Amino acid sequence: MKLNIALLAGDGIGPEVIEQAVKVSDAIAQKFGHEITWKPALTGAAAIDAVGEPYPDATHEVCKNADAVLFGAIGHPKYDNDPSAPVRPEQGLLKMRKALGLFANVRPTFTFPSLLDKSPLKRERIEGTDLVFLRELTGGIYFGEKGRKDNGDTAFDNCVYTRAEVQRLAKKGFELAMTRSKKLCCVDKANVLETSRLWRETVQAMEKDYPEVEVSYEFVDAVAMRLVQWPNSYDVLITENLFGDILTDEASVISGSMGLMPSASMGAEVSLFEPIHGSYPQATGLNIANPMATVLSAAMMFENFGLMEEGKAMRDAVNKALEAGVVTEDLADGGKAYGTKEVGDWLAANV
Amino acid sequence: MKLNIALLAGDGIGPEVIEQAVKVSDAIAQKFGHEITWKPALTGAAAIDAVGEPYPDATHEVCKNADAVLFGAIGHPKYDNDPSAPVRPEQGLLKMRKALGLFANVRPTFTFPSLLDKSPLKRERIEGTDLVFLRELTGGIYFGEKGRKDNGDTAFDNCVYTRAEVQRLAKKGFELAMTRSKKLCCVDKANVLETSRLWRETVQAMEKDYPEVEVSYEFVDAVAMRLVQWPNSYDVLITENLFGDILTDEASVISGSMGLMPSASMGAEVSLFEPIHGSYPQATGLNIANPMATVLSAAMMFENFGLMEEGKAMRDAVNKALEAGVVTEDLADGGKAYGTKEVGDWLAANV
Ligand SMILES: CC(C)[C@H](C(=O)O)[C@@H](O)C(=O)O
Ligand SMILES: CC(C)[C@H](C(=O)O)[C@@H](O)C(=O)O
Repeated sequence: MKLNIALLAGDGIGPEVIEQAVKVSDAIAQKFGHEITWKPALTGAAAIDAVGEPYPDATHEVCKNADAVLFGAIGHPKYDNDPSAPVRPEQGLLKMRKALGLFANVRPTFTFPSLLDKSPLKRERIEGTDLVFLRELTGGIYFGEKGRKDNGDTAFDNCVYTRAEVQRLAKKGFELAMTRSKKLCCVDKANVLETSRLWRETVQAMEKDYPEVEVSYEFVDAVAMRLVQWPNSYDVLITENLFGDILTDEASVISGSMGLMPSASMGAEVSLFEPIHGSYPQATGLNIANPMATVLSAAMMFENFGLMEEGKAMRDAVNKALEAGVVTEDLADGGKAYGTKEVGDWLAANV
Repeated sequence: MKLNIALLAGDGIGPEVIEQAVKVSDAIAQKFGHEITWKPALTGAAAIDAVGEPYPDATHEVCKNADAVLFGAIGHPKYDNDPSAPVRPEQGLLKMRKALGLFANVRPTFTFPSLLDKSPLKRERIEGTDLVFLRELTGGIYFGEKGRKDNGDTAFDNCVYTRAEVQRLAKKGFELAMTRSKKLCCVDKANVLETSRLWRETVQAMEKDYPEVEVSYEFVDAVAMRLVQWPNSYDVLITENLFGDILTDEASVISGSMGLMPSASMGAEVSLFEPIHGSYPQATGLNIANPMATVLSAAMMFENFGLMEEGKAMRDAVNKALEAGVVTEDLADGGKAYGTKEVGDWLAANV
């Protein structure tokens, strides 16, 4: 297969972890006879510094014309203290999601047996957890009209959803559930919000098309509790943008393997793959960042092209590295810590 | 002191736990020479059944004219499956909050040494946790304009905040922080929402009036993570209505003592005190519900009248009961389980 991949390294440790994922992907391509052309492009604080905005048109062109986007991380401390600054790295993120139509954010939370003890939860609570959130990513309160009135003394944000937006996301959820344990949980606040009532009635109407899927409806506050109490009671969860932002982050810390969690953002034309950890500015350039989440994101990318064996080979390499103790300092537990590059080299040599 | 307390027992186990809190409060009143007049009134499903609506005008009259409201729980399974039903118990709750102006929901999360092992978190993560959320309760997306367009295919909910609403809540937060560890965390999503930017700038402007309070600003998704990772790093947290709904519930399960957590909802004129556990319909009438959270809510009520010794006597009685194993089955751990009434009797005898 010939693959044309946009490469958005971004800020902080982004470039370092991306470099390893490229290395491992290239090794996979060679082994399985694919040809990958990487198209680097600017994003985040790096793009603001270079051209004055976080998601430049040139970058959008590259992404739009690619078969997929591999993304590192964005965010820089110099933008942290003033969330109302006119240009911020996160605005690039939102602009990119909207412009590329990345409507479904796929966020798995699973466990690695060797890392269970890193979880803040007791072992018996977390063991066997394997859930996936599908978060709607281009609608809701993130993109509704917002502004000020009364000389700035009143602020408003409008949350809007259409039935078609809910259907599009829910369809992905039902389909994903069919490939897994056939359990789907629709997370909403239908006892308070009209948008949530639209979500619930839309999903209810779709149930008949997927008779094998067992659908449950839970309020967002109840899910925030049960994720901590019984995370392994969930399979696939679908939810709107803001609830998804909060709950996927909550879910990411329960496994103890946050540094290893990949994600995908699916669009109708192109999809994007990125580790969920941030740009971790303090670690920039120190060769200590864990590249595994980015490698696993690249694995999701291969699988999304239907290249299942390739994806599996990358996952297996990560598992082998964990077992062999070829890990960065975050996972070294007092043992030998390898550098970012060395872990990347080892994975590339072992796929 | 002469106290005139509206008594809203509500649904499910509400009446049973309220009965115990009344018993213990009366014992306190007798011991300290106060006179409490209890004014029962209908609310929740019980009120819908009796008069067709969940927060009847007659109940509002009773609450408005009381010195405080002691509340049990509302919610009944017969309303659970259709969140768009025209009359639901929760609507009574929202109407009551708005009509009584209960703008600040106070939700402490603390631990009891004897219950630490009930937490889903590892002991070293949860030990020493003692935080309080102040959730704004009468504004935001709960009360903004909501509805449908396009023949019902588009739904919207508007989130609105005024500077004055934020100031009112934040003031309580600063004041509370001054009586505790002087640490205040403002939880928002200022990188996306205009209402959050108003929150943040308003709190920033108030910092100079409380030079001793160390204020931090964190995004709601980051707090959802850190609550699970390092709950004991927080002291007082202030936030808007919807974020507060999600985060206070998340916080309530980390301690392992959810069945014991009280809460208060403060208004300018009257305040309301209630356990955070719900109406627990399955347990109704079985004399197994844990009354301690309601007793501790009554303790908060006494303290809010400035009756600190009275509140402390109630807390001490609960601690003694826990140590003596005078507990309901949720805490009995295979040992002897006492009934709801028996725990109430014991507490009343031991204040
Ligand atoms: C940076 C921020 C705008 C973003 C979001 O809220 O979507 C982030 O938290 C995420 O989840 O990707
Ligand atoms: C029942 C519901 C409307 C309510 C809320 O969302 O405020 C509840 O979850 C709460 O936190 O008291």
